[in-house]
This record gives sequence, structure tokens and C-alpha cells, in this order.
Amino acid sequence: MAAARVAAAFICRSPESITIDKVSLTFNIHHTTEAGGRRATMQLPHAAVETPVFMPVGTVATVKAVPQHILEELEAQIILGNTYHLYLRPGHEAIRRLGGLHRFMSWERAILTDSGGFQVFSLSELRKVTENGVEFRSHLDGGRHFFSPEHSMDVQIALGSDIAMAFDECTEYPAEYARARSSLDLTLRWAERSKRHFDAHKYERPWDERFAGQTPNLFGIVQGGMYLDLRRESAERLVEMDFPGYAIGGLSVGEPRERTREVIEATLPLLPKDKPRYVMGVGYPDEIAEYARMGVDMMDCVLPTRAARHGLLFTSEGRMNIKNRQYAEDQNPPDVHCGCMVCRRYTRAYLRHLMAAQEPLSAVLNSIHNLAFYLNTMREVREEMSRAAAAQ
Amino acid sequence: MAAARVAAAFICRSPESITIDKVSLTFNIHHTTEAGGRRATMQLPHAAVETPVFMPVGTVATVKAVPQHILEELEAQIILGNTYHLYLRPGHEAIRRLGGLHRFMSWERAILTDSGGFQVFSLSELRKVTENGVEFRSHLDGGRHFFSPEHSMDVQIALGSDIAMAFDECTEYPAEYARARSSLDLTLRWAERSKRHFDAHKYERPWDERFAGQTPNLFGIVQGGMYLDLRRESAERLVEMDFPGYAIGGLSVGEPRERTREVIEATLPLLPKDKPRYVMGVGYPDEIAEYARMGVDMMDCVLPTRAARHGLLFTSEGRMNIKNRQYAEDQNPPDVHCGCMVCRRYTRAYLRHLMAAQEPLSAVLNSIHNLAFYLNTMREVREEMSRAAAAQ
Ligand SMILES: [Zn+2]
Ligand SMILES: [Zn+2]
Repeated sequence: MAAARVAAAFICRSPESITIDKVSLTFNIHHTTEAGGRRATMQLPHAAVETPVFMPVGTVATVKAVPQHILEELEAQIILGNTYHLYLRPGHEAIRRLGGLHRFMSWERAILTDSGGFQVFSLSELRKVTENGVEFRSHLDGGRHFFSPEHSMDVQIALGSDIAMAFDECTEYPAEYARARSSLDLTLRWAERSKRHFDAHKYERPWDERFAGQTPNLFGIVQGGMYLDLRRESAERLVEMDFPGYAIGGLSVGEPRERTREVIEATLPLLPKDKPRYVMGVGYPDEIAEYARMGVDMMDCVLPTRAARHGLLFTSEGRMNIKNRQYAEDQNPPDVHCGCMVCRRYTRAYLRHLMAAQEPLSAVLNSIHNLAFYLNTMREVREEMSRAAAAQ
Repeated sequence: MAAARVAAAFICRSPESITIDKVSLTFNIHHTTEAGGRRATMQLPHAAVETPVFMPVGTVATVKAVPQHILEELEAQIILGNTYHLYLRPGHEAIRRLGGLHRFMSWERAILTDSGGFQVFSLSELRKVTENGVEFRSHLDGGRHFFSPEHSMDVQIALGSDIAMAFDECTEYPAEYARARSSLDLTLRWAERSKRHFDAHKYERPWDERFAGQTPNLFGIVQGGMYLDLRRESAERLVEMDFPGYAIGGLSVGEPRERTREVIEATLPLLPKDKPRYVMGVGYPDEIAEYARMGVDMMDCVLPTRAARHGLLFTSEGRMNIKNRQYAEDQNPPDVHCGCMVCRRYTRAYLRHLMAAQEPLSAVLNSIHNLAFYLNTMREVREEMSRAAAAQ
């Protein structure tokens, strides 16, 4: 059992008031496996999250095609919001005025926001990086915008997420060593600036009095490309800065899967055992199960929802392209071993028909099943860890 | 109180078996108002339907963007399927093999299918009408198809709807008297052929043993364009043929609203008081309430779902274009007097954002609210009738 208590016990908010600060993140580890995996509860201001956890991606204040009450029925405890998209539309100041992202989208459980860095760097033609930050053009209307570490913190605080991410440069793949080196140095300077600005402004989150004394939590992001010595240096410097949790970023950028695994395996032991560890932007169901067993606590990926919209279903028997002719009169549920609301009610024949007819219900039902499959995959890993602990 | 008992008490199915036939439609009128409106319960093989009722349109085995369990929560008791669309995709024989439309789409309540006539006549460039039927080209791939009254019955019986519609020619608007006259004559000949073929084959519906002895019900359709003497002739001839229910078709084809009302008002008294009366393809919320108060028992319209996808919401305060800038930071529910799952949970600001961001959840939530509004409109008319009866 280990618990990381985050945020100082007393915080001076302003000359007029002194508030007893409540803890904004605790991480209680229940079991640890021989392979390094662990089952834990991460308590955040808006929810208690059982880890290892998969976080559905709610890009622009919606997990695409899925109503919030269905996400609740699927027992999603934390979802992800994309800072870049929300900054552009509807805008972080509008969301602040509307009471923050939780209230805006009517999601009372936990939210993690990314820093906007990854999305901005994906706009390869449209951006310019300087020491101060990144100038880029909107993919929506070509308008000019500028993100610095300080601005990313301001946006995430305005959104009011439970977990914010430091603003980092995601190194492209492949990258020469010298390029990865200088990119990492920039990311570390930005991490310092992110933390300083975040700590000075985190009480400005738009939460109501129920959350008095609580704040968002800022996680650092380990970078360093595919170079393990740079990953080590990144991890050590970030640990010195003392974040309440750490992410491993810069993966799923085109490298082979064995390389992803190698970087995760080499980086995990460099991070504090008593704090949550998050691998960003992965992966297929067997990957997220594998990384969870290695000791990764949090993962997110657009794959289940994006694949769903293209008719690709994840099942206990592998991937299924529901568009295929062979399913036209198949009366089985999409996944015979899945108990989700889609598999309990609908057949492969019906889902294939919806896809062939380009019906909007197709994306809804396919997304619900795929998210259920991802969330169940993590539930099974957690139960497997508890069984292993009970057997010892 | 009046009840129409439909279908003979004993039916000889084959030389080997005699089955005691169960009634496939009863229509029990609870109250009648001075204006001619009536509150009733229509018992169909798959559901008891409280009338006056609005029937959501489930074009191609899905009410666009709305999962079936949410239609159930909205208390929809009967939905409509489009014979033309289902014939083309996935095909009526495929649906028959899959157990019928109810089972295919996992909808256990009642279904009404149209005859395909209206859709085929909408393909104005692609069709050719003869005494025998209509040759047309598919809007999907241009392939040649032929619908006759007999074929329409075969398709609807294969789908297994609770209510099938006679195959009719929908007269275009405006139409000269001579044209309306000959169109009506054709429709009456087709009604005879529809009924003869339907009665000979209605037991071939793909229902399981729970429905032993029950069959779909065939409704006749009054035509005659905007000429009231032709409407009278049409109604009288159809009543002689003795259908279990009657529709008023050929409306909402471009005529002014006062004309629609005039035709309905003139036609209703010509139809049996003890049988359900259905006006096809109408209307706005105030129209369906008005027609219900005049004595129309059933209506359907694509408007609530189609408008929803374009951001048009129907509310107790009138129509609302949720795309408008004025709603960008409006924290009110879409309709402050609506208790639907959308209005209980989401704001105008959020729905506007989903629409602006072209998110698939937009169509889902807008459609749910609009259907709730239509279904509640009819519920209120029914309650108003009960209150009026109690006050007498
Ligand atoms: Zn499933
Ligand atoms: Zn509503």
C-alpha cells in the first residue's frame, strides 16, 4: 500500500483568506504483481478512478457519437479532452464562463486534458517553434494562434480538468540524436515554466464550492524520442521537479510496436512507484493490456471510437470488419463474449446493414461496443491482478 | 365505447389445419370530444398503442440517429418503416430470413410499413406507371425494379409489420381534375388487388409462435387529390372493401396548409367511426395536435428527426435554430418546459457547440428532444381529451 499526497497542506490564496488545502490527487495501490503491474485507486476531485484505466477520448467536449449517460453506463470514470480543439471551439474562456468543461458537457466524473502540444505539432505545415512557444495556424480557418507553456496552463485551468498536462514538444519519428536532444532540452525548460505558471494559477479553475481547496493536478511528460539515455535524463529531471503523476509521451508516432514497448519498459522503473504513470495515445486492446501488466496505470486512444466509425470492431475473437458481406445474415451479436448493451440487443447483420446504409446509428452502436470492449479489457486486467494477489 | 373486431373468427389455413384466428387489431375508444377527437387504445399484435399517436419514422430499420432503447424510454409504441428503402437494402427476403423487421432491428413494439408507393412516385424521373404497377430505377444504383400491388403486399408481409398499407398512386400537386380522376380509379383497382393478395398471404409473416393466429393488418388509403368529390368517392369505395383502418394519403405534397386541413375535415366523416384513421406524412407540432383534436388517430412525419439533423428544435416556445450565435452561452435547457433526457441534462450552449463542431452526437441529442416533443404533444392531447370527458 502506498499513497502519494499531493499539494501542500496549507495554501495562501490571497491576502484576505487562508484556505486549508484539500488533497487533489491520491493514489492508493492495492496490489502489485511480479511483472510490475499494480491495481490502484486514483482519487481525483471529480471521481475515484480504478487503475489501470483506459480513458475514452472526448476530443471536443464529446466522445464522438456517444451520449454521456451511456458513457456512465459503461462505467467510464475519466475521459480525455483535447485542449487544442476546445481552445479553438468553443474557446476556453467561453467554457470558463459556462462553469468549466465538466459542466459545459454535463460530465460529472473526471477529465484529463492534454496540453495541446501533440495536436499543434501534428499541424506540421502550419507551425513555427521558438523558445517561447509555438505559433500555428488553425486547421479550421487558417487563423494565427500562439501557444506557450503559460498559455497552455491558462487554457487547461479555464477548462478545469482534473489532470492537466505540461506543455511539451513531441519529437517526430524518426529523429536524429542531436534533434532529439535539443527537443528534450526545450521540453524540460517548458516543463519548468508549465509547473511554475500552473502552481501560481491553479486555483483559478472554474469549479463550484463543493471543490473548495481542491485544484487540477499537473502531470509531467517524459520525452527523448527513441533514445533510452534521453528518456532516462528526461525522467530524472522531471522527478526532481516533483509532479503528482508522470506521462510517457512521444510514442505512437510511427515507430514499430516493439520499440514502443522497449521505451515503456525502460522508462517505467525511472518513475516514482507511488505515483500514477500514464502512456499517451496507445493502443490496440492487446497492447493496453500488456502495458497495464507492465505497470502503466493510465492510457488513452482514439482507436476504439475512430475505428468504430469505419466499421472496425474489436472483439474477443479479434478484429471484425462489420462491413464485410459475410455478416449480412449473421444473427450473432458482434462479440459473443461481450455483455455490452449493443451485444445484448443487436446482431452483426443489423450493424452491417447500418454501416452499408450509412446510417448515423452505425457510429453510435459501433462506438459503444468498442468502448465497452476497451473498458472491459482493463477491468479484466484489474481483476486478474486481484486474483493473483489473493493467490499469494 | 366502440370496438372494431377485425379478421374472421375462423380461418382455414391449409387442408391439414384449422386455426382459431386471434384478433389482429382492436380499436377501443375511451372518450370522444365534441370536435370529433377521440382517445382510444389500438391493440396490435406487437403492442397496445394509445391514440391519437405520433409514429416516428424509421426509414431503413432505424429511426435516424436514435438507439432503440431510447425510443423505448421515450415511450414510442409504434414506429414506421419504409417499404421502398427496406426492399432495396437490405432486401425483404433477407429480412424475412432474419425473422422479420421487428427482430432484425430489435424492436419488439409495433411497426407500420408504408406501401412503397409514395417513395416510388417521388422518383419522378425514374418511374413508369402502367395498369399493372410501377417500373422504377433505384436511387442507389439505378437498377431496374417493378412494384405491383401484389409485390408491395409480398414485401410488407415479408417485413412482418403490424400494419401494412395498400399500394396506391399518390397524385401529384397540383393535378387537373381528369388526371386526379384517373389516378384515383387506378388506386381503387390497386386497393382491390392489394386486399385480395394480402388476405391470401398474410399468414406468411415471419413471426414466431407467440403470434399464432395473428397477422398484419391492411389499411386502405383515401386518395383523390384536392377534389372533395373524388375524396368522397374514394372513401366510400374503400369502406365497401372493409379495411380494419383507413389512411388519408396524398397530403403534404406541396398544397397550402389550409387545403390539407380542408381535405382532412371533409374526409374524416366519411370513414367508419369505430376504426383507426391515419393521416400520412404530417406535420408540424401544432398541426398534429389540431388534426388529433379533429379525430385523426395516427400520424407520422420525418420532420422531427430531419429538422433535428439541421439544428431545428421544436419547443414549447416555438421553433429554435440551435445553430444561432445567440445560444452560444445560453445555459438554459433546449426547452425549459420539456422533461426529456436531453433537456434534463444539456444546455443550448452545448447543443449549439455540437452542431457548430459537426459532431455526430448533435443529431443524436437533437433527434431525441424533437421526438420527445412530438410524442409529448400527442400525450398532452390525449390527456386533454380525458380531462374533457371527466368534466362532462
Ligand atoms: Zn459489445
Ligand atoms: Zn427535451
